Amino acid sequence: MTVGELYGKLKDKSKWFFMERDIERIFSALRSSGDFWEVLDRSEVPVLLVSWLVGEFEREGLVEVVEEEVRLTEEGRRFCEENRIPEHRRLECPWCRGKAVHVEAYMKVLREFKRLVSERPKPLRQYDQGFVTEESTIARVVLMAARGDLEGKKVLVLGDDDLVGLALALTGAPGEVVVLDIDDRLLDFIENKAREVGFHGLEVRRADFRDPLSEDLVGRFDVFLTDPSESLPALRAFIGRGVVGLKGIGGAGYFGLTRAESSLWKWRELEKILVQDFGMAITDIIHDFNAYLGWGYEREMKAWNYLPVKSEPKGIWYRSCWFRIERVEETHLENAPIEGEIVEDDEMATA
Amino acid sequence: MTVGELYGKLKDKSKWFFMERDIERIFSALRSSGDFWEVLDRSEVPVLLVSWLVGEFEREGLVEVVEEEVRLTEEGRRFCEENRIPEHRRLECPWCRGKAVHVEAYMKVLREFKRLVSERPKPLRQYDQGFVTEESTIARVVLMAARGDLEGKKVLVLGDDDLVGLALALTGAPGEVVVLDIDDRLLDFIENKAREVGFHGLEVRRADFRDPLSEDLVGRFDVFLTDPSESLPALRAFIGRGVVGLKGIGGAGYFGLTRAESSLWKWRELEKILVQDFGMAITDIIHDFNAYLGWGYEREMKAWNYLPVKSEPKGIWYRSCWFRIERVEETHLENAPIEGEIVEDDEMATA
Repeated sequence: MTVGELYGKLKDKSKWFFMERDIERIFSALRSSGDFWEVLDRSEVPVLLVSWLVGEFEREGLVEVVEEEVRLTEEGRRFCEENRIPEHRRLECPWCRGKAVHVEAYMKVLREFKRLVSERPKPLRQYDQGFVTEESTIARVVLMAARGDLEGKKVLVLGDDDLVGLALALTGAPGEVVVLDIDDRLLDFIENKAREVGFHGLEVRRADFRDPLSEDLVGRFDVFLTDPSESLPALRAFIGRGVVGLKGIGGAGYFGLTRAESSLWKWRELEKILVQDFGMAITDIIHDFNAYLGWGYEREMKAWNYLPVKSEPKGIWYRSCWFRIERVEETHLENAPIEGEIVEDDEMATA
Repeated sequence: MTVGELYGKLKDKSKWFFMERDIERIFSALRSSGDFWEVLDRSEVPVLLVSWLVGEFEREGLVEVVEEEVRLTEEGRRFCEENRIPEHRRLECPWCRGKAVHVEAYMKVLREFKRLVSERPKPLRQYDQGFVTEESTIARVVLMAARGDLEGKKVLVLGDDDLVGLALALTGAPGEVVVLDIDDRLLDFIENKAREVGFHGLEVRRADFRDPLSEDLVGRFDVFLTDPSESLPALRAFIGRGVVGLKGIGGAGYFGLTRAESSLWKWRELEKILVQDFGMAITDIIHDFNAYLGWGYEREMKAWNYLPVKSEPKGIWYRSCWFRIERVEETHLENAPIEGEIVEDDEMATA
């Protein structure tokens, strides 16, 4: 059987956007691991689609679930060989783990950050929270320094379970940091710790990104960061509020986007919005820059029911790519309220 | 004086797209080095614009040219401090030099490649040639392996002074490699060396990218690579021919784009074309992935007359960011001939 034939059998049954390449990507991941969470991570195909497809592959006799592992059958291995699907290899730089920046240049900040965040609030499913490793947070700050987005800059953080605001405070470098979040526990934590380390340019405010950005924050910042829920309406809302907060041309933004909850179809739709509507150039997309720690509510997330294997993840399995964008044209931006629930779409798995 | 005030003085005199940020970027680079080529490299502002601006800064008493060096004056240093413009820091990972991939995983290929290319043809100005370090070429191959774009794949290389075709041949991994170039010297070299290493899946053909892609190559490939001249018409032509060569959805492309010859305005225009017209999602943009060796015709290039310092570069000063794109929608593509000269625009400096 060719990949094209298998795709032909399945494509009309899928409720998700899906391409032949996704079949290749999943089999390539399956050749490299039997741990389903690792397969999810390596395949770079949306979680719900992988879960459904692995069930279909099982029906086709290409994979089998044995003792909490998803394994290729004899026929599955033949399928890979006939279609020249190689074993997945990550091949990221072993030093920076593909982050491309030199986190060790901020080793003191990293060490201090690790000490400070040990009592951080636990992630809440209600707010689609789930935070990244301390190295990921500090790498964001290092990237900002490398791109001239740190020293003396006014920085807006929209949603901060990753505690970037606190990391920024630790560097002492920004001119101003404003952290917006819906969760008072986080805001209190960040405010207290920033005061503890003696940074006085940080302000926290409770905000819901369905509401317009507060008037006094509009057009005030050089840089924003956000790590949105990945429905298109939420991406547009979070990133859009950030762009509204920028001073204008030359203003920069950073945000994360996964392959686990966003197909490349969604990537492209978002990129159209960024480039066309928001007037931004995309300057960097760093693959798997952010590594997320388990958030402790895996069993409650939407994807759990779809998983072919009901074991808890053993390590990091959820990563996001990190975008940098920079404003090139003063396009017209909306700062209007958004009605209804925005953190839902067919590809979202963790909410 | 603020950056905004200086910008106000200069913006109407410039014939290039130019933003306040560019002034910051140049001063940040000037704080870190007096070598003009290093300033060009670090500022990430188009070469011709930097050259012109440095002249204007000199008139303003902010910089001075002394003994082949561009230095900040006392007033220039004060300008940086008052505007909180920090010294530029590259902060790339010292191991992979910001490439994010593990080139050492292909050490044998790299070593063999270095041996083979020692007799490569010299770059010709007539074709806007200028090649990257061997590490950059092999890093492209490693990235392809990591993204599932190598093993068993049909690969089209459009223009190959970087000898990617030969590097691909050395891995033995692709199903097929077709190299197109206008320069017979390169084609002969690649063909002979590929035969020497025993790879028989490589074909070379003379081609001019102003002509349509040959019919038998249309819709045939899984992956393409190109490193175009950076006028928008040339970018559209080179990358467009590559996309026309792809099988369709799931097909991937790679290409380089600099800040030295392309403002972020041009970046955005190109990104609109990629996303909108070509139906691609941009999956990776790896900053300064490609490092170019001096091409030996610096004195003949367009920028030379504009340079405030007429010394030859001492090291690598010209880099490009490396894009990966993947086809998501079968948009309508043109494969029509293009009339006239396409490798010229106001930002281009090296042709």
